[in-house]
Amino acid sequence: MSLDVLKTIADTLESRRQASAQTSYVASLFQKGEDAILKKVAEEAAETLLASKDKDKLHLVREVADLWFHSMILLAYHGLRPEDVLMELKRREGISGLDEKASRPITP
Amino acid sequence: MSLDVLKTIADTLESRRQASAQTSYVASLFQKGEDAILKKVAEEAAETLLASKDKDKLHLVREVADLWFHSMILLAYHGLRPEDVLMELKRREGISGLDEKASRPITP
Amino acid sequence: MSLDVLKTIADTLESRRQASAQTSYVASLFQKGEDAILKKVAEEAAETLLASKDKDKLHLVREVADLWFHSMILLAYHGLRPEDVLMELKRREGISGLDEKASRPITP
Amino acid sequence: MSLDVLKTIADTLESRRQASAQTSYVASLFQKGEDAILKKVAEEAAETLLASKDKDKLHLVREVADLWFHSMILLAYHGLRPEDVLMELKRREGISGLDEKASRPITP
Repeated sequence: MSLDVLKTIADTLESRRQASAQTSYVASLFQKGEDAILKKVAEEAAETLLASKDKDKLHLVREVADLWFHSMILLAYHGLRPEDVLMELKRREGISGLDEKASRPITP
Repeated sequence: MSLDVLKTIADTLESRRQASAQTSYVASLFQKGEDAILKKVAEEAAETLLASKDKDKLHLVREVADLWFHSMILLAYHGLRPEDVLMELKRREGISGLDEKASRPITP
Repeated sequence: MSLDVLKTIADTLESRRQASAQTSYVASLFQKGEDAILKKVAEEAAETLLASKDKDKLHLVREVADLWFHSMILLAYHGLRPEDVLMELKRREGISGLDEKASRPITP
Repeated sequence: MSLDVLKTIADTLESRRQASAQTSYVASLFQKGEDAILKKVAEEAAETLLASKDKDKLHLVREVADLWFHSMILLAYHGLRPEDVLMELKRREGISGLDEKASRPITP
């Protein structure tokens, strides 16, 4: 399931690079450029914080979905795909069992 | 592939809730609590912005992986899983074809 | 000079708590509530990052002004004033000469 | 008072550009460079959000002080001073009475 939905989103995002900014939210973001996309990523991260502090689980799921969706727009802007991120996560799993105290300093 | 890696990460995160904070980065974050996790989410979002502005694609993939990984720690903290986020993304795809200008206001 | 401008802004912000949201940007933010103000603080912080990375000094000054202005709206929302922040900065200056390595851990 | 404290901080920050990173937190940040300073600005903005959501006024004042302090480090990094920001705020006050609905779009 997840493979399908992330691939479908990535395919859709790629097709939006040529679409009209009048009809597509994503196309209008691509047209505004990198900073507009980055502001949305920062905005969705802030909204994720607020939803978490409100202990609103449904809202939190929607905000994390927005955060991942706009991260994928940013990836597409750079010619990258969610599969690249998943491969990086997979790679770490192989190396460290995903969580090795020694290799990740804890910020105080 | 992606389904496997995200599920494996979510399973690992759940198992870390009982692990010792001395040996596990994730367990130590769970122990520090919600604000410590949220600060990491905000930090990784900021590092995503910086990597993008530096046009460093490899760095960007690593930062988005960090951002997604810490989002999943936040989800696990609230008893949620990445599948919940993927289902929300899937649901939007069904409703709007993922990108419907009318339903998403553009922030100026 | 600075004392005057910060005091004037704080006085203006306080007067906006009663103003109509139709005529005042600040009044409309107060009416939307805490989360709306916090999103603006996060947004202006992100724009400060982008302006700095673009090495655009004029833009950077405008974004830091926006960040401070929206911080002052947040202070006013909580019944606080910029003088409280300046007093905290003054207090630190007294204690540590503003910059004491031992007392502030460096995040890696 | 405020003019004095902001000027004193700015003078101190300038003097730290030549100081040893071993003894000064600010000098070590300057030495790490722009991205390290920007990460701190983003981090303090996130901590401001969390303190506000916790309705902890004392904590909020400390976090806004941290945010302004690190903004001033960023200004110093670019050869700018808090007076530049205060002048920008003063300029807006002159033009618009600081708050003119028509000239500032509200983000939804």
